Amino acid sequence: MARIAVVAGDGIGPEVVAQARKVIDAVVPDVQATEYDLGAARYHRTGEVLPDSVLAELAEHDAILLGAVGDPSVPPGVLERGLLLTLRFAFDQYVNLRPSRLWPGTTGPLGGVKPGEVDLVVVREGTEGLYAGAGGSLHRGTPAEIATEESLNTRHGVERVIRDAFARAERREERKVTLVHKTNVLTHAGSLWARTFADVAAEHPDVTTEYQHVDAAAMFLVTQPQRYDVLVTDNLFGDILTDIAAAVTGGIGLAASGSINPEGAYPSMFEPVHGSAPDIAGRGLADPVAAVLSAALLLDQLGHPEPAARITAAVAAELIGRAPGAPMRTEDVGDRLAAYAAG
Amino acid sequence: MARIAVVAGDGIGPEVVAQARKVIDAVVPDVQATEYDLGAARYHRTGEVLPDSVLAELAEHDAILLGAVGDPSVPPGVLERGLLLTLRFAFDQYVNLRPSRLWPGTTGPLGGVKPGEVDLVVVREGTEGLYAGAGGSLHRGTPAEIATEESLNTRHGVERVIRDAFARAERREERKVTLVHKTNVLTHAGSLWARTFADVAAEHPDVTTEYQHVDAAAMFLVTQPQRYDVLVTDNLFGDILTDIAAAVTGGIGLAASGSINPEGAYPSMFEPVHGSAPDIAGRGLADPVAAVLSAALLLDQLGHPEPAARITAAVAAELIGRAPGAPMRTEDVGDRLAAYAAG
Ligand SMILES: CC(C)[C@H](C(=O)O)[C@@H](O)C(=O)O
Ligand SMILES: CC(C)[C@H](C(=O)O)[C@@H](O)C(=O)O
Repeated sequence: MARIAVVAGDGIGPEVVAQARKVIDAVVPDVQATEYDLGAARYHRTGEVLPDSVLAELAEHDAILLGAVGDPSVPPGVLERGLLLTLRFAFDQYVNLRPSRLWPGTTGPLGGVKPGEVDLVVVREGTEGLYAGAGGSLHRGTPAEIATEESLNTRHGVERVIRDAFARAERREERKVTLVHKTNVLTHAGSLWARTFADVAAEHPDVTTEYQHVDAAAMFLVTQPQRYDVLVTDNLFGDILTDIAAAVTGGIGLAASGSINPEGAYPSMFEPVHGSAPDIAGRGLADPVAAVLSAALLLDQLGHPEPAARITAAVAAELIGRAPGAPMRTEDVGDRLAAYAAG
Repeated sequence: MARIAVVAGDGIGPEVVAQARKVIDAVVPDVQATEYDLGAARYHRTGEVLPDSVLAELAEHDAILLGAVGDPSVPPGVLERGLLLTLRFAFDQYVNLRPSRLWPGTTGPLGGVKPGEVDLVVVREGTEGLYAGAGGSLHRGTPAEIATEESLNTRHGVERVIRDAFARAERREERKVTLVHKTNVLTHAGSLWARTFADVAAEHPDVTTEYQHVDAAAMFLVTQPQRYDVLVTDNLFGDILTDIAAAVTGGIGLAASGSINPEGAYPSMFEPVHGSAPDIAGRGLADPVAAVLSAALLLDQLGHPEPAARITAAVAAELIGRAPGAPMRTEDVGDRLAAYAAG
């Protein structure tokens, strides 16, 4: 029996997470869910972001399902660093997984790209690089101020995420991995990434590989997103590229993500990429598809690929059947997805 | 009389630069141009990328007009770092200027954005950040390898480029500056950028300001590029964002750029964003518009705003008059632009 921790969070978080749980229950009966109250509301009530005791309890779960945390009333960074990034680092979630599809039935912003043509996944490193928090400043607030940010990259950290990307590519049809970095400027980290990529690629002769500078990849994601299958990149480049990929596939409204510790030594976390959308919260108007797709990633990671695939098929059916501009009822969508996925 | 150094470079560089010079000569009669042979061809012939003596000679000019350098036969990074980045740093070209317009008569990849609606300029810092070359590695080639890259940011460097962005915004109709950074993760550098931005903004109450994280900006450049006027950002973010901006406005084929030392203590350099395109080189097929627009930026910087505006108007007329898919003759385009700009 899988034990999952549920952090519904703020704004539309509880609404969309309720649908994701409904769909999980419809396809995998023996999931035990425990709710944790974290996010802006708790922060305002108690001043706490992530108490050590809660972190320790979360660690006892197989996975975490998160809705959305955040509210304009919380100072920027408090929840992002105190909660999301803390969990990624504490739980060694080194694979930050972000699939992007332009689903049949939806329209993206690109005139020349047809629904169904884009199906890519970004494997973003999640525990190193410029997210390490290694920086500082001197003479702060004076004309002599300097501020530094250091990108830390280890062979250990780079190799394991590249291995994960190749393993994912081998389970896909196209079997292609694109390494994205900026080796012509970031020569030290770039060389480590490029050499490690070459070493791992040599063990996977069945996988096609290519390299692109991050600026070129950002451009091609706009002009030819169809060309990508699996992309692997560092933490900050991945942050940017996944938002571009989401944008060209119809926005973050449909985008799911996982922060994964593949070995299962710690719980992995799954969440829609969208935020808490306080403007529409509590009105049953939020689209739960991204949360439901995140639940599918969760089940896949917990060793239930078949139910996960049924959820994905339910989403595909839902999106192709949507009348453009028709009003969205969060609960109704959840009901339809659950019914379809249950078969 | 202005003295400009011309680095035609490789591939289509000489062809497009010839048109840019033709157009300059048509609008400002007293420009004296001296050619410098730099790029892949010279590198192969002599092993030299940028001899000190050439650097010293270039320094004696008012500006540099560059076509394109590079060829697949040159190891990656040699010309980028040895020539382009060396010039940016040696000549303190701290304003890396990249305008993006979706010109009437052209089509971009975004279905919902109409020609004429996008007119933005990215003011990218050019001499600091992760481009400083401050990084290293330990235990290279072993499982224990670590590699670092350090972003160096000074109040001096940040303030001067933000001031330039506000000065440019004040000369534009919309008068809006968007700061792009990643303050929620890069807290030290982000704080320096944000505080400096606030200080400079306070001196410009007539300019509207906003802040966006780089991932959000990357997304909005795809979904709503119309919302931007002037963007100011650091060296690496600027590298990525300008390629997205170029992509959504029809690709790097039409994009111009300037690496500017606004005080004129050193020469500024102007170049099309596109590369040397060896596949079509020497056949008179390259579109010289990006090179010609770079020449307009050059003239503007050298204190000739009126001739610069006439070149821009010539480009606008050229693009609106182009029949879709009609063959392009480099020389013919140059002739038309020169004639139109000459008035
Ligand atoms: C909220 C922020 C810290 C986070 C990141 O930068 O990773 C977010 O942008 C994301 O992509 O999950
Ligand atoms: C060639 C490379 C070093 C350069 C950069 O990264 O600045 C290029 O991408 C650019 O944008 O001018």
